[in-house]
Amino acid sequence: MIELNFAKSADGLIPAIVQDYKTNEVLMLAYINKLAWEETLKTGKAHYWSRSRQKLWLKGESSGHVQMIHEILVDCDDDTVVYKVEQIGGAACHTGYSTCFFRKVKGERLVVEGKKVFDPEKVYKNKI
Amino acid sequence: MIELNFAKSADGLIPAIVQDYKTNEVLMLAYINKLAWEETLKTGKAHYWSRSRQKLWLKGESSGHVQMIHEILVDCDDDTVVYKVEQIGGAACHTGYSTCFFRKVKGERLVVEGKKVFDPEKVYKNKI
Repeated sequence: MIELNFAKSADGLIPAIVQDYKTNEVLMLAYINKLAWEETLKTGKAHYWSRSRQKLWLKGESSGHVQMIHEILVDCDDDTVVYKVEQIGGAACHTGYSTCFFRKVKGERLVVEGKKVFDPEKVYKNKI
Repeated sequence: MIELNFAKSADGLIPAIVQDYKTNEVLMLAYINKLAWEETLKTGKAHYWSRSRQKLWLKGESSGHVQMIHEILVDCDDDTVVYKVEQIGGAACHTGYSTCFFRKVKGERLVVEGKKVFDPEKVYKNKI
C-alpha cells in the first residue's frame, strides 16, 4: 500500500482533489484518512472521510453517483492527492451542479457559471 | 470583499487548489487565511498562508515564479477555492517540476510522470 503523510495534519486527514478524467475540470475537494485511502485503492471507487458525519463515506452511497477512479496522482509532500474520476450521473455536487466550483469571482460578486444536472430534491428525497 | 468560511477549520485555513489556466492541470494545493485571500484579490498574484513558517506567503517571493491570477472559483460551501493561474517560470513545485503532482499511482508504486523545468539548487541557491 502506498503510504501517505496523514500525520501532517492534526486530525489525520489530507485533501483529495477530484478532477474529471476527461476534461480536467475540478469537481470537488474532500478529505481522506488511511481507511478511505485503502478503500479507494481496493475498490476503484472514491471513498472519503466525512468530517460532518465522522464516518467513512463512499461518494454516491445515497445518490448512486459514485466516482470511478481512472488515475491517482500524489504530490511532492505525500499530503495531497488528485483523483481523476468518471463521475457517474454527471454531477459531483450535492446541489445538482456538475462541479462544486460552479461560482466564479467577478469583482465583488460571485456569479453562477455552471448548469444544474439534477434536482437534489428528487435525487435525495427517498434516500436520506 | 467576498466572504469565505474560514471558521470551518480549527486553524482558520482553507485549501486553495491551483490550476494552470490554459490546460486545467492541477499544479499544487496550498492554504489561505483571510489575509492571504484579501492580498490575492487585491494584487492579482496568488498569496497563501505558509503553515511551516506561519506567515503570509507570496508564491514566488524567493524564486520569482509568481502565479498571476486569471480566474477564481469558489465551492458550494465557501470553504475551498480554485485559483486558475499563469505560472511564471513554468514550474509550481519547489522540486523543479511543473506540478507538485508529478507522481502517479501504478499498482503498489508511485511512478514519476512529469519533467523537471528547473534545477532547484540553481534557482534557490542565493535566495534563501
